[in-house]
Amino acid sequence: MKRLGILTGGGDAPGLNAVIRAVAKVAAAEDAELYGFRNGYSGLIRGDYLRLEKQHISGLLPRGGTILGTNNRDNPFNFPVKEGNKTVYRDMSDKAVENLETFQIDCLIVIGGDGSLAIARELAEKGARIIGVPKTIDNDMQGTDQTFGFDTAVTTATDALDKLHTTAESHHRVMVLELMGRYAGWIALYSGVAGGADVILIPEISWSIENVAKKIISRKAEGKPFSIIVVAEGAKTPKGEQVVRDTIKGSGDPIRLGGIGHLVARMVENTTGFESRATVLGHLQRGGSPSPFDRILATRYGEAAARLALAGEFGKMVSLKNGEITSLTFEEIPSGCRVIPAEHSLIKAAKSLGISFGD
Amino acid sequence: MKRLGILTGGGDAPGLNAVIRAVAKVAAAEDAELYGFRNGYSGLIRGDYLRLEKQHISGLLPRGGTILGTNNRDNPFNFPVKEGNKTVYRDMSDKAVENLETFQIDCLIVIGGDGSLAIARELAEKGARIIGVPKTIDNDMQGTDQTFGFDTAVTTATDALDKLHTTAESHHRVMVLELMGRYAGWIALYSGVAGGADVILIPEISWSIENVAKKIISRKAEGKPFSIIVVAEGAKTPKGEQVVRDTIKGSGDPIRLGGIGHLVARMVENTTGFESRATVLGHLQRGGSPSPFDRILATRYGEAAARLALAGEFGKMVSLKNGEITSLTFEEIPSGCRVIPAEHSLIKAAKSLGISFGD
Amino acid sequence: MKRLGILTGGGDAPGLNAVIRAVAKVAAAEDAELYGFRNGYSGLIRGDYLRLEKQHISGLLPRGGTILGTNNRDNPFNFPVKEGNKTVYRDMSDKAVENLETFQIDCLIVIGGDGSLAIARELAEKGARIIGVPKTIDNDMQGTDQTFGFDTAVTTATDALDKLHTTAESHHRVMVLELMGRYAGWIALYSGVAGGADVILIPEISWSIENVAKKIISRKAEGKPFSIIVVAEGAKTPKGEQVVRDTIKGSGDPIRLGGIGHLVARMVENTTGFESRATVLGHLQRGGSPSPFDRILATRYGEAAARLALAGEFGKMVSLKNGEITSLTFEEIPSGCRVIPAEHSLIKAAKSLGISFGD
Amino acid sequence: MKRLGILTGGGDAPGLNAVIRAVAKVAAAEDAELYGFRNGYSGLIRGDYLRLEKQHISGLLPRGGTILGTNNRDNPFNFPVKEGNKTVYRDMSDKAVENLETFQIDCLIVIGGDGSLAIARELAEKGARIIGVPKTIDNDMQGTDQTFGFDTAVTTATDALDKLHTTAESHHRVMVLELMGRYAGWIALYSGVAGGADVILIPEISWSIENVAKKIISRKAEGKPFSIIVVAEGAKTPKGEQVVRDTIKGSGDPIRLGGIGHLVARMVENTTGFESRATVLGHLQRGGSPSPFDRILATRYGEAAARLALAGEFGKMVSLKNGEITSLTFEEIPSGCRVIPAEHSLIKAAKSLGISFGD
Repeated sequence: MKRLGILTGGGDAPGLNAVIRAVAKVAAAEDAELYGFRNGYSGLIRGDYLRLEKQHISGLLPRGGTILGTNNRDNPFNFPVKEGNKTVYRDMSDKAVENLETFQIDCLIVIGGDGSLAIARELAEKGARIIGVPKTIDNDMQGTDQTFGFDTAVTTATDALDKLHTTAESHHRVMVLELMGRYAGWIALYSGVAGGADVILIPEISWSIENVAKKIISRKAEGKPFSIIVVAEGAKTPKGEQVVRDTIKGSGDPIRLGGIGHLVARMVENTTGFESRATVLGHLQRGGSPSPFDRILATRYGEAAARLALAGEFGKMVSLKNGEITSLTFEEIPSGCRVIPAEHSLIKAAKSLGISFGD
Repeated sequence: MKRLGILTGGGDAPGLNAVIRAVAKVAAAEDAELYGFRNGYSGLIRGDYLRLEKQHISGLLPRGGTILGTNNRDNPFNFPVKEGNKTVYRDMSDKAVENLETFQIDCLIVIGGDGSLAIARELAEKGARIIGVPKTIDNDMQGTDQTFGFDTAVTTATDALDKLHTTAESHHRVMVLELMGRYAGWIALYSGVAGGADVILIPEISWSIENVAKKIISRKAEGKPFSIIVVAEGAKTPKGEQVVRDTIKGSGDPIRLGGIGHLVARMVENTTGFESRATVLGHLQRGGSPSPFDRILATRYGEAAARLALAGEFGKMVSLKNGEITSLTFEEIPSGCRVIPAEHSLIKAAKSLGISFGD
Repeated sequence: MKRLGILTGGGDAPGLNAVIRAVAKVAAAEDAELYGFRNGYSGLIRGDYLRLEKQHISGLLPRGGTILGTNNRDNPFNFPVKEGNKTVYRDMSDKAVENLETFQIDCLIVIGGDGSLAIARELAEKGARIIGVPKTIDNDMQGTDQTFGFDTAVTTATDALDKLHTTAESHHRVMVLELMGRYAGWIALYSGVAGGADVILIPEISWSIENVAKKIISRKAEGKPFSIIVVAEGAKTPKGEQVVRDTIKGSGDPIRLGGIGHLVARMVENTTGFESRATVLGHLQRGGSPSPFDRILATRYGEAAARLALAGEFGKMVSLKNGEITSLTFEEIPSGCRVIPAEHSLIKAAKSLGISFGD
Repeated sequence: MKRLGILTGGGDAPGLNAVIRAVAKVAAAEDAELYGFRNGYSGLIRGDYLRLEKQHISGLLPRGGTILGTNNRDNPFNFPVKEGNKTVYRDMSDKAVENLETFQIDCLIVIGGDGSLAIARELAEKGARIIGVPKTIDNDMQGTDQTFGFDTAVTTATDALDKLHTTAESHHRVMVLELMGRYAGWIALYSGVAGGADVILIPEISWSIENVAKKIISRKAEGKPFSIIVVAEGAKTPKGEQVVRDTIKGSGDPIRLGGIGHLVARMVENTTGFESRATVLGHLQRGGSPSPFDRILATRYGEAAARLALAGEFGKMVSLKNGEITSLTFEEIPSGCRVIPAEHSLIKAAKSLGISFGD
């Protein structure tokens, strides 16, 4: 009887549980065992796991989050270990590879983003048998057309834009919505088009406050004294600076927590004189029940990953290409972040409708 | 100044207003006029139209339905005309083509399904300058990978399945959900996978009640004394008959209105002895605010259609291929209905997870 | 240490799990044990129960259905028992009372509708220590201002009306929505007002097709060639007949399944000549995550029931009166169904807005 | 023929359009004219109004915001007037009263919060014929049991809590959600109970970080290494300070924009060592389609207000008392803000379930 392992790493995304469920269903159908490691690679290194049986996956498809827990800090190559009364960081990657043997895991399925899959690749180079499943709500991973969680995040963001529209219109205000997307503006672009934004600011396109103001003022001239601006958290200032939201830990001052959204609102208000308000959608984008599209994508990824694992085709990541599920080897995955090309057809269509990108 | 016309034909679908809005925005940007004909081809023949200005499209993106009205009966080639006190049917297609000249419409954009676009092609053969935009919530049109309205219908159906799940589980029942799809089971397949159905019955795959019962009984043996069955309205009986739901008009008996859903529930109850209930989702699948995906797809279709119309590239239908908007000539559109191939990758994945198609 | 029991009876309603959770939380805080009987009174008679601990109630608040299972047929006073190879019906009520002693249950909390609470009262008369929690999505129980599940059902029905509105308007149709409410029209009245219905037909008010048609025709005269009709399943025909939807079991003919909704649609079409369509919302009204109002009401009911049970105040039902939770003895509960008074202020307000009740 | 006027003042709330629609429907039924003043009292003073006809109210019931626009700054008693090239503030209240005569308004219906209705009362003392309709999503107005918009805001906040739950659980984090409620914690209390919060901090109850930390640590001891904290924006710090979120205008520093939510997150992290994150729901609470409850309440308010206006019963505010619509004179409205009594039954029930208020 084969034995598969599974873990979830990095920030949570709607659809993680749907992947776990699909892997468990295929494993059950093929008479394989499935072990779930808790809290990402930590569970593998610490030997914290459970056998996933039918009852664990019941009702899992529509549930957000991950029943395995996740962790976006514990890197096996730089792993926090208590020594005496302090924490030191050690390379525990050999332990991770070794534990897969100890626990007799034929193949480990890692569901994770850039970071988790880079670690998976390094472990694979050390001999671990691994299949990767790409995951990020930001949709900026190389090697796949789309990641699960993205469609749900766009849905949550679009719903927020619908809500802001009525209040913007009633109060004749400029409403700014700051969305996730540190390096790529996919969520901002898609939800901006779907939510009827007037201005979309993304990391890929540099903008000036004059161009943003021009759009807002021209709307007023057409009898629309309100506007909606969507801004990705990673959009830079007109001077090219990145506004880093202070983490709570690092902030010397409890109220130094604004980000690019608040900055844009202030700049708009100063430039146009229009009352402006910012909202930061934040963690809500990660939560909730996955959309039907994401449930299907996650299910297909899970099914394909389990098949590859059982067939012994290790060292690969499952992927969506032109609507079909395929896979590529870890080596074939292009490096870096999948940003939006300036000539992307949706940007062109958006501009054609009059949406400003501030450029 | 160019002048475009637009009409919506056939059953309504979420996203129609988003197409109209996109066309109007491009027209405004390019200094073209836009005339909307009311209630499908009727408006063209009867000269019932309005000039679409900025105020008509305000707030249109998230709204279901069509502000132009639609009509799925008035065919220009067989058009109802009052003569004396009776209605006769005449070929009014020449009048339709002529009116486009009379009203000085440079190009007519027709948003419609199989029927409306077949008419568009015939009018084009008579000289009318037309661009088609494919529309059906059933997703079964040839020449495009996806139609707007489908994702929203799948979302509504998946939400219904989520609701039925809790009641099925609490009551240990078999719940049957009948969904749209007269010739193709796309909505049933996608929402069935997304909603965690145990059995999916579609027109493309013939099924036996024994196979359905086997799945339900095996679930009970695994401690799951409830099941969810999704059935497309066009799924045939095991004998290959199509169960036509009586239209209200034709029914001699007001309560002879069950369809395949109720039939499946009765067959399951008779065969397995399990309490079974059917729900027919019906018109709810057409309604509501379009999903973000559908708003984006409809917007891109509208933008592309307006561009083609203004560029004078008539006789084409816009289309989605591998994520990009393109177009093909009316002649290039394959005939017939786009049914699901038996070897479709999602059917294979679904079977791999243990979902039964009754075959 | 005290030991409480709990069971859920009758049709499921959103909020059942929230009651169970609240009882369990109070029990845990007061160092009492809680036993859950499975599938209504069956679990009590058959000794089918589980100890409810912290892990069982985790994540329960937003979940529809009931984790205990329910049953709307097994009456202890007429209980199905296998004798040889046939089923006979026996009075097992003494066994039910006896089992409470055997299992050392200090008090049993019964969450149920009219039927389940009538049984509870009879068992109490035989000496059982019971607290009742009123439950019905129909909101027609005596002794309380509102039951949990009702607000969620109204929300689901209103959402359906919003969806039907866009399609009615686009197609110039009359759309009929049949809602639950066999004896009382609360869901139809509330969702009809919230969903902008033009006509509301309920069991409490007799109507004529002429009055319904008059409303629809007057709307057309005002430029609104579409209408929305809401009808409670228990609304009688103009002749005072009740249209009983065939259960699947009883139907000689698989397609004889229409109800009052389809009948009304046909009558409207025949009388006005307007195209009419009926949708039956059915089981969807029971499903889904409870609304915030229902979660709060269910939580307050559960908390109050647990307090009464631990305080030894047996033989009572918790109740909502003027926004506060109170209780009354089983004897104080008025008999019969809480129908809508013809002079109800919401009916008067609805009529004042022009909504027709067909009278 | 009577002529009514209507305006909306203060922050927008879901249900404003439903009130306008109800007033318009009653006016139409009673052959009265209705004039809508734009942007609160500004429209009255500036003579900016429109006649509200059937077409204006079509489709209005489910729409958020207000079609009349609103304004929470222009006070007739201190009204901004351009003199030369600067803005001075003048008492324009006589002009407001006079304009009601000039425009021959028999009665003005003012939908607004504390501020707008205090102005209404003062104008009434100067002779204006006014009916008030209470409005605030915060639910803190005196003289009524509930205001429309509150149930919708609670629904939006509860949905946000559901989303945060999955991410909190997956990441073993403390998630803090900051909600509206400057003086009263109604939204925080209701959505906190409905959304399963572990800690609720409101302006009415002073708290210590030690008590908050104790709750979080005791949850971890029970195997729940995550917690949800809801905090009303007006909740004071343990030292009794109010953390005022810098308005954009006033802030010397663009990123000095955190509020009590971020402060609580930092205090929790510092005290417990648990990773903590804050989300500020902000303007989203005002937006969106009103819930069925709010549509019904708004409709009843509008109907009752129109009736009073037409009956000549001026100087009153409509009100909800024990489920029925009634009215009281402006003089009868208690002064001040309706805060939550410390002995409120829902607070007691919440504490009984183990929810901490930090006290």
